[in-house]
Amino acid sequence: MSAREAMISSAATLFRERGVAATSMRDVVEHAKAPRGSIYHHFPGGKAELADAATAMAGGFIERILTDVLGSGDPAEAIALFIDYWKQALTRRDFADGCAVAAAAISSAETSDAREQAGRAFARWQEQITAALVAHGTTPDTAADRAGLAIAAIEGALIMARARQSTEPLERVARQLSALLADRA
Amino acid sequence: MSAREAMISSAATLFRERGVAATSMRDVVEHAKAPRGSIYHHFPGGKAELADAATAMAGGFIERILTDVLGSGDPAEAIALFIDYWKQALTRRDFADGCAVAAAAISSAETSDAREQAGRAFARWQEQITAALVAHGTTPDTAADRAGLAIAAIEGALIMARARQSTEPLERVARQLSALLADRA
Repeated sequence: MSAREAMISSAATLFRERGVAATSMRDVVEHAKAPRGSIYHHFPGGKAELADAATAMAGGFIERILTDVLGSGDPAEAIALFIDYWKQALTRRDFADGCAVAAAAISSAETSDAREQAGRAFARWQEQITAALVAHGTTPDTAADRAGLAIAAIEGALIMARARQSTEPLERVARQLSALLADRA
Repeated sequence: MSAREAMISSAATLFRERGVAATSMRDVVEHAKAPRGSIYHHFPGGKAELADAATAMAGGFIERILTDVLGSGDPAEAIALFIDYWKQALTRRDFADGCAVAAAAISSAETSDAREQAGRAFARWQEQITAALVAHGTTPDTAADRAGLAIAAIEGALIMARARQSTEPLERVARQLSALLADRA
């Protein structure tokens, strides 16, 4: 991993844990164990540029997981696997963090590029799930609504799980989405 | 509104806009137009105590909206009204903020009381929706899962709406929840 990549990865980690607004360039430098001045060499646009890059990386990471699980065939099963990924991620880190893309989505005007990047990531995930549902017989409009519901429900359940320090919210969402996405209408 | 209530209300507003971690006691004092020293008089426990109070207030506010809409009778219709409330809130503030309870849910160890308060708020909202679904013929386990899905989907859609500066994510969730919650099975 290059120095630049290490900083992007550290930024995404800190965004997941504490949010974008509460993460300073100095925090990222310290987390990445990088020399203080180097971060402005790699990100002359400062925090706005770094946040944008970290959000793009986090969005791409989830996009690849979705490509992977959706490749298994059945969309209902794929979403169950996707939720399992999140359950494992949350419990492994003791419910101390969440989704870096969601963190960017709720960040301020200072990081509006990252916020727009988050919007594009959500749109791409939704397209991926929509395409899989359409390929399995769901009409395009219904498929898009169900894909949007699936992403919203998972993002919301991650927040609820963190508040309650429990995977139960994800399990409830998994059971409901499983039944809904298996419906080919 | 007392000075104490004004500070709690300001804290909730700032949490919605920028998150808990990025909101300082000084920000709250300035927003509430209160004398600098007074905030520690009202909240000797500092930010942890203020965040807890603001989260309790925000959770109670949503609880009353849910009581109100669920009182109209049909749970599917009630959730549609609840989503309409959020659509109006987001557009009125130009997508610049979200849910204060969600902000508390993803806050750090420093404000763990507020995080637990958020968990209890989510649990209460879920109980309210579950009870309404059961009263309309849904079995208790399914009702709890659907209530959990509804809250998760709305919270997630609020984040997606903010990222995309559009109410579309809430509209997709509204269409899907409307069909699902009308199902009495």
